[in-house]
Amino acid sequence: MVEHPAHLDRTDPAGHIAAAAAAYRNWGRWGEDDRLGTLNFIDDARRVAAAALVQRGAAFSLSQPFDMNGPQQGWRRRTNPVHTMLDTGTDAVANGQGFPHGIGGADDVIAMPLQCSTQWDGLGHIFDRGTAWNGRPADRVVTSEGDLVTGIEHAVDRIVGRGVLLDMGRHLRPDGELPDGYAITVEDLESCIAAQGPTSRVGRGDLVLVRTGRYTRAKREGWNGYAGGPSAGLSFTTAGWLHRTEIAAIATDTWGFEVRPNEFDDAFQPLHQVVIPNIGLTVGEMWDLDDLAEDCAADGRFEFLLTAAPLRITGAVGSPVTPIALK
Amino acid sequence: MVEHPAHLDRTDPAGHIAAAAAAYRNWGRWGEDDRLGTLNFIDDARRVAAAALVQRGAAFSLSQPFDMNGPQQGWRRRTNPVHTMLDTGTDAVANGQGFPHGIGGADDVIAMPLQCSTQWDGLGHIFDRGTAWNGRPADRVVTSEGDLVTGIEHAVDRIVGRGVLLDMGRHLRPDGELPDGYAITVEDLESCIAAQGPTSRVGRGDLVLVRTGRYTRAKREGWNGYAGGPSAGLSFTTAGWLHRTEIAAIATDTWGFEVRPNEFDDAFQPLHQVVIPNIGLTVGEMWDLDDLAEDCAADGRFEFLLTAAPLRITGAVGSPVTPIALK
Amino acid sequence: MVEHPAHLDRTDPAGHIAAAAAAYRNWGRWGEDDRLGTLNFIDDARRVAAAALVQRGAAFSLSQPFDMNGPQQGWRRRTNPVHTMLDTGTDAVANGQGFPHGIGGADDVIAMPLQCSTQWDGLGHIFDRGTAWNGRPADRVVTSEGDLVTGIEHAVDRIVGRGVLLDMGRHLRPDGELPDGYAITVEDLESCIAAQGPTSRVGRGDLVLVRTGRYTRAKREGWNGYAGGPSAGLSFTTAGWLHRTEIAAIATDTWGFEVRPNEFDDAFQPLHQVVIPNIGLTVGEMWDLDDLAEDCAADGRFEFLLTAAPLRITGAVGSPVTPIALK
Amino acid sequence: MVEHPAHLDRTDPAGHIAAAAAAYRNWGRWGEDDRLGTLNFIDDARRVAAAALVQRGAAFSLSQPFDMNGPQQGWRRRTNPVHTMLDTGTDAVANGQGFPHGIGGADDVIAMPLQCSTQWDGLGHIFDRGTAWNGRPADRVVTSEGDLVTGIEHAVDRIVGRGVLLDMGRHLRPDGELPDGYAITVEDLESCIAAQGPTSRVGRGDLVLVRTGRYTRAKREGWNGYAGGPSAGLSFTTAGWLHRTEIAAIATDTWGFEVRPNEFDDAFQPLHQVVIPNIGLTVGEMWDLDDLAEDCAADGRFEFLLTAAPLRITGAVGSPVTPIALK
Repeated sequence: MVEHPAHLDRTDPAGHIAAAAAAYRNWGRWGEDDRLGTLNFIDDARRVAAAALVQRGAAFSLSQPFDMNGPQQGWRRRTNPVHTMLDTGTDAVANGQGFPHGIGGADDVIAMPLQCSTQWDGLGHIFDRGTAWNGRPADRVVTSEGDLVTGIEHAVDRIVGRGVLLDMGRHLRPDGELPDGYAITVEDLESCIAAQGPTSRVGRGDLVLVRTGRYTRAKREGWNGYAGGPSAGLSFTTAGWLHRTEIAAIATDTWGFEVRPNEFDDAFQPLHQVVIPNIGLTVGEMWDLDDLAEDCAADGRFEFLLTAAPLRITGAVGSPVTPIALK
Repeated sequence: MVEHPAHLDRTDPAGHIAAAAAAYRNWGRWGEDDRLGTLNFIDDARRVAAAALVQRGAAFSLSQPFDMNGPQQGWRRRTNPVHTMLDTGTDAVANGQGFPHGIGGADDVIAMPLQCSTQWDGLGHIFDRGTAWNGRPADRVVTSEGDLVTGIEHAVDRIVGRGVLLDMGRHLRPDGELPDGYAITVEDLESCIAAQGPTSRVGRGDLVLVRTGRYTRAKREGWNGYAGGPSAGLSFTTAGWLHRTEIAAIATDTWGFEVRPNEFDDAFQPLHQVVIPNIGLTVGEMWDLDDLAEDCAADGRFEFLLTAAPLRITGAVGSPVTPIALK
Repeated sequence: MVEHPAHLDRTDPAGHIAAAAAAYRNWGRWGEDDRLGTLNFIDDARRVAAAALVQRGAAFSLSQPFDMNGPQQGWRRRTNPVHTMLDTGTDAVANGQGFPHGIGGADDVIAMPLQCSTQWDGLGHIFDRGTAWNGRPADRVVTSEGDLVTGIEHAVDRIVGRGVLLDMGRHLRPDGELPDGYAITVEDLESCIAAQGPTSRVGRGDLVLVRTGRYTRAKREGWNGYAGGPSAGLSFTTAGWLHRTEIAAIATDTWGFEVRPNEFDDAFQPLHQVVIPNIGLTVGEMWDLDDLAEDCAADGRFEFLLTAAPLRITGAVGSPVTPIALK
Repeated sequence: MVEHPAHLDRTDPAGHIAAAAAAYRNWGRWGEDDRLGTLNFIDDARRVAAAALVQRGAAFSLSQPFDMNGPQQGWRRRTNPVHTMLDTGTDAVANGQGFPHGIGGADDVIAMPLQCSTQWDGLGHIFDRGTAWNGRPADRVVTSEGDLVTGIEHAVDRIVGRGVLLDMGRHLRPDGELPDGYAITVEDLESCIAAQGPTSRVGRGDLVLVRTGRYTRAKREGWNGYAGGPSAGLSFTTAGWLHRTEIAAIATDTWGFEVRPNEFDDAFQPLHQVVIPNIGLTVGEMWDLDDLAEDCAADGRFEFLLTAAPLRITGAVGSPVTPIALK
C-alpha cells in the first residue's frame, strides 16, 4: 500500500477510498461492542498529564456563536438555530406572569440541527458503503430513532485530555490564512510541528486542533460559502497520518474538516468516509481557534488541557459543543 | 439585619425577600456593565489551583440524558427534547442518498427548552420586582429577542474552576437521600463541610455542587414529580451563606435548587428571587452527581477541576451543559 | 372470501390482514402513477351536488385545539404543539421593537408532529409488509426526506365534497357515547344509516364522519388515554364495507379510527394496514364532531358540504386540518 | 377628512396613519368583547349565497408549498419550514420498527413560523401605537404566551364565504404582472371591477383576493426578495376603500399585502397599521392565485365559494392556511 501517493487519480475516488479504508481500518481493535473508536486512546494517565499543562489559568472558549446569523443556508435542511422565548422580562414587567411576591422569569427554547455550529461528528455520522463504525451495517445503527449503537451520549465523559494546536495558517502564510482549496498534507503537518516546537508533538490520545484561518476570514468578510463552499482543509492523503499518530480526535475551524473542493472530480467528503467509519475518529468542525492561536503564538506553547464534552443527547450522531482550552 | 432568622414568617415571603435582597445585593460590585455576577470571582490563579487538583485523571460527566424520557411534563411549555433525524443509515442503505462513491450520512435536529435537562440558569432567568441582575429594568434586558444584556454567551469561557461537592444526602441520611421538603440550612452545610474534611472547604470562586439524592431516587423509582414537585433543596435561609462565601456558582441534583414546597405559604422559588437578580449567582439544576459522589466518598476527596461551559447561544437565559469533573 | 367473518380468529391478525388486503386491494385502479387513492372518487359533479346541500349557511369547524393541553403523551415522540412567540405586544409597548411611526407587531412559531391533533393520515403513513399504496416498496416512497411519491401535498385541492355524519354514539347509546372497546360493525353502520334516514346514505366519493362520543367524554373528563388508549372505533370487519362503498375518505372523533384494544391478541392497528396501503383510503382522526352532530340531530339532515384541505407540506405523511362543514 | 389624498406627504407617515386610523376605526362596532373584526360581516345568508356560486365543481387550492425551498431568509427569525421524520419507510423495510404482523408506519414533525408561507394575519399581529384591535392595550393582548384575546382560533369557523378575485395584474398589464413598487389605488381597484364585470362587485362580507403577478414571477425567476423586497401591492390610500366596502378579509399573492417599498420615506407597512388594529381586517399573504386567475379569465366569472379556515392554534397571531376556491 502506498500511504500517501504522489498523485491522486482524480477520476477514482472509490478506488482510493477503498484502499485507504482497507489500510487504516481499526474495526475490532477495541472489541466487538466498541462505541468510542479512537477516543479509547485517552486514558487516566494522559488526563493527568494534560491537567499538568495548565500553568497560567487562562481559559479559552473555542465555540462560534449559535444564532440566526450563522453560516447555514439550508443544505440538507441544516438551518441556523432558532431561539425563541417562553417568558420574557417585558412580560414580567407588563403583567407579572401570574407569579407571587414579585418574582418574574424568562425561559427559552431552541430548535437547531446538531451540526449547525461548533460541533462534534459522532461515529454514526458517516458510513462507508453501507457500513458504520466497527463494521456494523449502517441500517442497524442509525434509524429514524437515532443512533442506536454509537450515539454521542457514549462519549459524554471521554473528550477531555491534551489538546494541541497546529496553526497551519500562521505556519504557511504570512497573513495566517490558507487560501480556499489548499490541501494540507502530511508534510505540511510535520513541518508545522517541527516549526512550532516540542509542545506541538502529536501522538496517542491527543486532541488535535487544526487552524486554517477560514473562520478568521469569515468573521472579517462574511460567511461567503463557509458552510459547504471552498476552503482549505486536510488532504485525503493525510488518512494514514491520522491513523498512525493514534490521535483521539481532530477538529478544525472549517465547515468540513477536509479540503474543499475535494481532491477528486466527482466526490463528496472522501476523507470523512475513511476516518469516521473506518478509523473510528471523532471529528470536530466549525471551531473558533483564533484567540487560542493568538495566545499560543505569543507564548510559544501549543499544548493545553482541552475539555470538549458533547451534550448527552440520546442517539445523536453529532453534538454542539463548547470546547474549553485551559493553559 | 438578621441573617438567617430562627423562624421564617410563612405568611410574608415578600418581606423576607425584600430584606434578603437588600442585605445581599451585589449590584455595581463589578461595575455598571457587568454581565457575569459572581462568576467574576473565578480568576486565573484559582483555575491553576483547580487544575492542580487532578491526581488520578478520572473524568465524570455530571449530565442527565437529553431525550423524550426526561422529567418535563409541560409546565410553562417546558417539554422534553425532541430529537429527529434528517438522514439515517436506513436511507443510506436503501437508496444511497444521492451521494457518490458509497459515502452515506446521518444528520439530526433537536428542539428543546434550554432548561429541559442538566442546565445553568443564566442571570436573565429570574427578576426581582421587575429588576434584573445589576439593577437593570427587566424589560430592557429580556425581550422576545432574548437576553440583550446578560445572555449566557457571555459566560461561555468562565465556568471552569475548583468544584467542591457537598454530599448532603450521604451526610445527613444513612441511605444517602434527603426526604422531600427537607430544607438544607447553613448549619447543615457547615456540618457537612466539617464532616467531609478540608477538601470540602468552600470559599471565593468555588463551584459548589450540592447532592440531595433526589435524582438518585428518580433513577430508581421514576420521575414522580421531579420537575416541579416536592424535593429537598436549599433553605431560603441560606441566602446569606451563598452571599458571604463568595462562591462563583452552585448546582444541585434537583429540578429547582431550593427546597420544595417552598418555605412560605404562597410562594414560588423565593430563593431564586434573591440569589439570581440580587447576588448575581449562576445556578445549575438537574445535574447527576451520583457517580462523582460515590468516588468522593471512596477517596475522601471532595474537590476537583470542574469544567461546565454553557452553549454559546446568543441571548439565552439558560443553557444545557455537560459538566465534567476531573479528579 | 368471507367478507366479514362471524368470528375473527384473535390469534391470527396476519392471516386476516393478508386475506382482507388481497380482497380489497385497489392497486392500479387509477393507474401506475396514482398518488390519491380513493380521493379519485370525488369529481366535479359530486362537488356541485355537495355545494347544493348548503341550505342554512351554518358553518362548523370540526377541529380540536392545537396547544400544549392536547392528548399527546410522547408515544413514538408525538408531542403536543409548542407555540412560541418571536415578537409580542409586551415588547411593542416596552421598547418599540425598532419599528418606525408607532407600528408594532407580534409573530409566532410552532413545532408540532403533523398528527398531534385533528389530522389526515396521508397515503404514505402506513405500510403493509413493506409495501406502500399502489404496490410501491415503502423504502422507495418514504425516506428521511419525507414521502417522495404520495406526499399529502398532492391531495391539497381534493378533499372537498359531500360529507355525511354517522353518529354512532347517538344511534347506539342513549347518552351518545360508545363504551371503550366497542367495535363498530357493518351492521351498526347500516342500521345507523337506516335510522338517520336518506340524508345519511353512503356511496362513491363521500367523506364519511363517524362519531363515537370518545372526544365528548375527553372534553368532559380529561384525556385519560385518548391518545392510544382504549376507545370505540371501527371493527376490522368493516374493511369490506369501506372498500365496496367507494367512499373517498373517512374520519372519526377518536385517536386511532379503529377500535382499541384491537380485535386480535397481539396486534397494532390492523385495519389501518388494510385500508391505507391497500384500499388507498385517506383516514382522518381526532376530529371534533360534537357541534355538527348536535345540529344534525336537531334538523335531521346528516349531509353537508365538507372542505378539509391538508396543509401543502411537501412530502408530509399526515397533516393538521381544519375541516369545515357547511349546511 | 380627505379619503385618498392626491398627494401623500412622504415625510409624514405618522400623520397619515393617525388620520386614517381615526377615520376608519371600527372599535366597538361589534361590542367590547369582539375578537373577529370584519369577519363579523360574514353571515349565514352570505354563506348560502356563496355556496350557490358553485356551478362546475372545480376546486382550486390557493396555497404555496410549505418546505425548505420557500422564500424566507431569516427576517425577524422567520425561517422556512423544517419537516423531519419520526418514522420512515426505509426503517419499516430495514427493521420492522418493532410492530407486529407486518404493519409499518411513517410519521413526521414540522417546525415553522406561522407566517412562513400562505397565511392569515390574525388580529393580534399588528399594533398601532401600543394598541391592538378594538382599542385594547397591546401588552394585555399578546404576551409570550400568545394572543390571549384575539387568537386566531376564534376565527376557525368564520372564513367561509363569497370570494372575489381582482386580477390587477391581468387588468393593468398585458403580461399579467405588475412591476415592483406599483401602488394599487382605489381607481385601479374600481376600474378592475368594472372591467371584470358584475361577478367582481365587492361588498359587505366578501373575501377579496388581489392578484399582482408577483408570485407568478417568483415561480418563474426565483424568489429574488419575494419576502420583504420590492413588490406591487395596495396603496396606503386604499385604506378608506377597505373600510367602506365592508369586506370581511383580503388576501394577496405577495409577501406583504401593501406596496413595497412603502409610500413614505421612513416607514414599515403603514397600511397594516391602519387596517389590522383599527379596521379589524383579516389580511392574507403569500397566496397562489394563478390557477384560479386563469380559470376566472377563461370563464369570465370572478366569484366563488372560498373556504380558508386557519388552524385552530390557541393564541396564534397568524396561521398557515390552505384556501380552497370552489366554482
